[in-house]
Amino acid sequence: MNLTAVIMAGGRGERFWPRSRRNMPKQFLDLTGDRTMLQMTVDRIRPLVPAERVFVATGREYAGLVLDQLPDLSSANLILEPEGRDTAPCIGLAALCVEKVDPGAVMLVLPADHLIEKEAEFRDLLLAAARVANAGDALVTLGISPTSPETGYGYIQCGKQSRQVDGRPVYKVERFTEKPDFETARRFLADGEYLWNSGMFIWKASAIRSAVGRYLPDLHAGLEEIRPAIGNPEEEEVLAAVFPRLRKVSIDYGVMERAEEVYVLRADIGWNDVGAWTALERFHETDERGNLLRGEGVLIDTVACTIDAPGKLVAAVGLEDLVIVDTPDALLVCRKDKVHEIKLVIAKLKEQGKSEYL
Amino acid sequence: MNLTAVIMAGGRGERFWPRSRRNMPKQFLDLTGDRTMLQMTVDRIRPLVPAERVFVATGREYAGLVLDQLPDLSSANLILEPEGRDTAPCIGLAALCVEKVDPGAVMLVLPADHLIEKEAEFRDLLLAAARVANAGDALVTLGISPTSPETGYGYIQCGKQSRQVDGRPVYKVERFTEKPDFETARRFLADGEYLWNSGMFIWKASAIRSAVGRYLPDLHAGLEEIRPAIGNPEEEEVLAAVFPRLRKVSIDYGVMERAEEVYVLRADIGWNDVGAWTALERFHETDERGNLLRGEGVLIDTVACTIDAPGKLVAAVGLEDLVIVDTPDALLVCRKDKVHEIKLVIAKLKEQGKSEYL
Repeated sequence: MNLTAVIMAGGRGERFWPRSRRNMPKQFLDLTGDRTMLQMTVDRIRPLVPAERVFVATGREYAGLVLDQLPDLSSANLILEPEGRDTAPCIGLAALCVEKVDPGAVMLVLPADHLIEKEAEFRDLLLAAARVANAGDALVTLGISPTSPETGYGYIQCGKQSRQVDGRPVYKVERFTEKPDFETARRFLADGEYLWNSGMFIWKASAIRSAVGRYLPDLHAGLEEIRPAIGNPEEEEVLAAVFPRLRKVSIDYGVMERAEEVYVLRADIGWNDVGAWTALERFHETDERGNLLRGEGVLIDTVACTIDAPGKLVAAVGLEDLVIVDTPDALLVCRKDKVHEIKLVIAKLKEQGKSEYL
Repeated sequence: MNLTAVIMAGGRGERFWPRSRRNMPKQFLDLTGDRTMLQMTVDRIRPLVPAERVFVATGREYAGLVLDQLPDLSSANLILEPEGRDTAPCIGLAALCVEKVDPGAVMLVLPADHLIEKEAEFRDLLLAAARVANAGDALVTLGISPTSPETGYGYIQCGKQSRQVDGRPVYKVERFTEKPDFETARRFLADGEYLWNSGMFIWKASAIRSAVGRYLPDLHAGLEEIRPAIGNPEEEEVLAAVFPRLRKVSIDYGVMERAEEVYVLRADIGWNDVGAWTALERFHETDERGNLLRGEGVLIDTVACTIDAPGKLVAAVGLEDLVIVDTPDALLVCRKDKVHEIKLVIAKLKEQGKSEYL
C-alpha cells in the first residue's frame, strides 16, 4: 500500500489577525510552540509517508513560505492553486498530481492548521483508514469524538458498523450535517452516534477522481483539461487558464454528502482546530492567575488574559479576560468573548482601503 | 518692573509611562496637542517676558531636549541641576542665576508640566502678583479655585484679604495643608477659603534668597558657596561638588509653610496638572462613545477608552474604560481606575533590572 500525503495549506483564515495576515496565514505561524502548524502537520505523518510522497497544496503566493518551512519538500511536490476555489477543485488537482506519480496511491488528505495531541493513535487510525480505502473505492474520513456541544463544526452521523480493521470499527456514514444550533449540538453530543467532521480524508486517488466524475461532472471535465499538463512545462499556464473557472465547492458538499461508499473511523486523538486566540490557552503554560504570556510582561491585578507580544514588554494593569496581540504595525486588544468579531475589524479595514494591515 | 521667568522642567514623573521615560519626562511630550508642555509653558508667558529673560531649570541630562524644544533659549539661560534635590535647592540656584543677571528682578517660578486654558487671565494674574512681590519682600503664590474634592493636591487656606491689586483681592496665606483625605477635601471645597496649591510662585530673587537664609540656613550656606561660580568657567565643577550635598526639601515645606509674608491670589484659569493618562480626555476630541484615539484605529463595541498609539493601527473589540499606550518597545494596557498602579509596573521593572524600559 503506497501512502501519499496531501497537506492542504491554502487557508487564508482571519481569526488570528493581526498575527496572521493575508501573506502569513495561520498554518505558517508557530502559535502553539516552536514549529509552525504546517511543519507539525508534516512531522506528524512522516513516520508513515516518505518525504518524496508528501505533497503540499497551497496558493501560488505561499510557495516561498512553504518551501522555507519544509526544507525536505521538493518543489515538484508543491501543488499551487492559482486562486482559492474551495476544497473540491484543490483535492481534484491534488489527485491528478498523485496519480501522475503513482496511479494506485492512497491519498491522506490533511488540513495544515489542526493540532493533534495523540500522534501515534492518529497514525494508527490513518493506517486503518488507508486499509479500508485501499481495498476498494471507499471514501474514508476521520470523525472526531465530540467533547462539547460545538456549534462551529459540521457533524457526521455514524450508520451501522460495516467491518472492523485493525480492531477498529468502521462505520458507514449515515449523513453529514451542517453546523448545528446549540440545542441540536447538545442532542448530537448526548446521542453518541455523531462525530465532528475533521476535514481529513483517506481514499485512492482514482476513487476520488471517479467520485468527482459522478457528482461534479463539470469539475471533472475541467480537471481532465488540466491532466495532460501536469508535470509538463505548460502546467502553470494551463492551470492559470482553467483552474479559476472550476466550480467553487467544498468536497463535503460536492462529493461526501452525496456519495454512497463513505465510511468514517472514530478518532479520539486530542484534535484541535485552533480556531481562535482563545484556543491557545490549551497549548501553553499559564501563570497562577490564568494568564498566557508570549513575550515579556509585567502583569498587575490581571487574570485570564492571553498576551502575544514577542519582542515587546507588555504592562497589564487591572485586566481580565482580554486577548492582546502586538505586531510591528498593528495591535489588537479584544475581549475574549468577542474574538469572533475580529472579522469585523478586517471587514472595516477592507472598507477603509487599509489593505496594508490585512 | 523686570519680570524673569524660571521654568522648572526637572520632573521625572512616571505617570505617563510608557510614553514618558526617564530620558523623556512628561514636560517634553506633546500629550495634549502639537506643542510639548514645556513649549506651551514658555509660549504662555512670552507676552510678559522677553526670550532673554526666560530661564529653564532642569536636570543636566535634559539639556539637549530643552534646547531642541526651545530654539529661542540661550544655553546661558539653562540652569542645570547635577541631580534632583527637590524644589528648594532648584529655586535657590535659579535665584542666584537671576540675581546675577538682574539683582532687582521679580521671578515667576512656573512648573513646565501644567496646562492653563485661560492664558490671558493667567498673565493678568501673574502681573498682579508681580506687583505685590515687587513692592516688598512678599512671597506670592497662585491658588487654584478648586472644582472638585481632589485628594491629590495640597491646599492653601486663605486668610484675610490684605489689599487689592489690579482689582484682584490678595490674601494673606493662613496655612498650607498637605494632601487631605476625601472628607477633608470635601470640607475644603465647601468652605470656599481653600485653594489648590499650584506650585507657581512670584517673588523677588532677593526675597526668596533671604527667606531661604532664614528658614533653610544650611541650604543658604550651600548656595553661597555656589554663588561666586555662577556664569564662570568653574560653575559646572562647583555645582557638581556642592549641589548634591544640598538638603533635599521642597520650597513649600522648607519655606512657604514657615514664612510670614506669604500671599495668594485666587486663580480661575482653567488649570490642569495633567496628572495621569485619564486627564487627556479633557484636551482631545473623543468619538461619540467617549473614546480618545491618537493614531489609527478600528474600534468595535468599545467605549470610554483612551488610546495613544501614533504610528500603529489599534483594533479594539469589546473594551470599556481602558488606557492603551503603545511605544516601540513597551505597551501598556491599564484599567482607567487603576492608572495610579502604573508606578507598580515601574517598581517591578526596576526590581527586575529592566532599566531599558524606565
